[in-house]
Amino acid sequence: MIEHERQELEQVLSKLLGTFEEKMPFNKLLGVRIESLHLDEVRLRINMREELIGNFIHGILHGGVIASVLDVAGAMIAIANDFTHRQNLTEAERREGLDKTGTIDLHISYLRPGRGKYFIASSKILRSGKRIAVTRMELHNDDNLLIAVATGCYSVG
Amino acid sequence: MIEHERQELEQVLSKLLGTFEEKMPFNKLLGVRIESLHLDEVRLRINMREELIGNFIHGILHGGVIASVLDVAGAMIAIANDFTHRQNLTEAERREGLDKTGTIDLHISYLRPGRGKYFIASSKILRSGKRIAVTRMELHNDDNLLIAVATGCYSVG
Amino acid sequence: MIEHERQELEQVLSKLLGTFEEKMPFNKLLGVRIESLHLDEVRLRINMREELIGNFIHGILHGGVIASVLDVAGAMIAIANDFTHRQNLTEAERREGLDKTGTIDLHISYLRPGRGKYFIASSKILRSGKRIAVTRMELHNDDNLLIAVATGCYSVG
Amino acid sequence: MIEHERQELEQVLSKLLGTFEEKMPFNKLLGVRIESLHLDEVRLRINMREELIGNFIHGILHGGVIASVLDVAGAMIAIANDFTHRQNLTEAERREGLDKTGTIDLHISYLRPGRGKYFIASSKILRSGKRIAVTRMELHNDDNLLIAVATGCYSVG
Repeated sequence: MIEHERQELEQVLSKLLGTFEEKMPFNKLLGVRIESLHLDEVRLRINMREELIGNFIHGILHGGVIASVLDVAGAMIAIANDFTHRQNLTEAERREGLDKTGTIDLHISYLRPGRGKYFIASSKILRSGKRIAVTRMELHNDDNLLIAVATGCYSVG
Repeated sequence: MIEHERQELEQVLSKLLGTFEEKMPFNKLLGVRIESLHLDEVRLRINMREELIGNFIHGILHGGVIASVLDVAGAMIAIANDFTHRQNLTEAERREGLDKTGTIDLHISYLRPGRGKYFIASSKILRSGKRIAVTRMELHNDDNLLIAVATGCYSVG
Repeated sequence: MIEHERQELEQVLSKLLGTFEEKMPFNKLLGVRIESLHLDEVRLRINMREELIGNFIHGILHGGVIASVLDVAGAMIAIANDFTHRQNLTEAERREGLDKTGTIDLHISYLRPGRGKYFIASSKILRSGKRIAVTRMELHNDDNLLIAVATGCYSVG
Repeated sequence: MIEHERQELEQVLSKLLGTFEEKMPFNKLLGVRIESLHLDEVRLRINMREELIGNFIHGILHGGVIASVLDVAGAMIAIANDFTHRQNLTEAERREGLDKTGTIDLHISYLRPGRGKYFIASSKILRSGKRIAVTRMELHNDDNLLIAVATGCYSVG
């Protein structure tokens, strides 16, 4: 893909996913924010706050919060990657494709306690199919410690 | 185990886990409630509400909510099962054991869209070790449709 | 589906999968045999023999053998289930569909040491899509002890 | 760890794992060979041959062979890593530890058809516990194409 095509696709991607907070109420409840959106990597940010704690004594992020933000990061890179397979769609067709994206399965390994002021979830493509995307996700804390890794399988298009 | 021992253990379990909402703020945010607590099966309930929606157009539960409630159900059955391995602990020792329980990994398969008024997460033990428990979890909706299944691996004791 | 249609489909299934030993040399090396083939359940059998041992001291089945036979059982039920979605194909078209079936991911939980004279791998459908099937597999030994469980995701059609 | 300690441990590791072919008959059947053994990375090699084919028409490696070699690579890095936690054991104690190592669960994502003359399975540690190790594995073919990735959870010590 030539550079200006990539830029154009990333602009449409930003436009479509930029409003995901309103369309996905649970992401709003969690406070997930987009840090950066590229066709080959998505980065999301979530700030620690008391409501997201799983274990009050240890003060660590709930495993479900980690699963949630990694799943969102996986779905977004699956969508972004699908853009590269279908370069000539209208915005309306892309919007429709978005709604067809679904998680088939998700495997999370919890590596370290979820301690930190904020966390970055990043995602990449492992398998890039026209119907299925397999993705890898990672969660780092603000000290750049690897907290969790995940693999996701998504239906796309 | 004879019946009155089982009952005694289940009473301690209820006492210790019954207050988990206060100790696990994220469960409170989700609105997870204990439906029943036994040494061989745990059942949790979560009511649908707008904040838990993942996709506004389809009005379905966010995959992260499903992962969260299945993870909690898995952790609880791992704890319950561990009670049966350590029958002569004091309540304080059990409380301590609770805080040591941690998710090692979690694998979720999403089978149907998360539509329903409420959902029941149930969990059972697949592998009952003194250090590790492997658990199976299921999520059904109020029509008893199977929405998702999961396998979890937990460190205990 | 009415009963005689089911029987007809199962006959074609038996014909197509019955020769899988010749087409899948590794299954021959393992010694996997079909025990029963139905549209809703597949059962395979593998006999213990020295070459399949993973740990000589314990004399137990290699984890890779378990993964292999569970994967084959999963692929077969994915194929069988796909028959029910496409009832009017010719045998040649079905044969082609067979070759398109592929494992996307596989998650195995090892529950007990693989001791036994023979083992039965059984598989069922969890999610029945036109492009994707999610399957559950179990391995029991000749004492009917549950040795391992697995979940697989397969592309079909 | 200082350099000569690392070297000493790697020598013991080579001695103990170097004979794994005789102790693990299935690895012999597959033809798995050790390419390199370090405390932080293990590399295994497997040559393509007809008996390991899963699909005769496509001539690709059976998914079970991939699972098997990735599982062996994961178990070996779990053992190697455990050496670093227990630096002062005798060889006999280490040998005993080896036999206690077991796979708890294994998740494999199949990314590309297993075509190639030979394949390299490599493994690293993701979570380094005294009782549990979580590992990441990858399989590349002789063109350095990534064929599959996996995550494993092993009991150690």
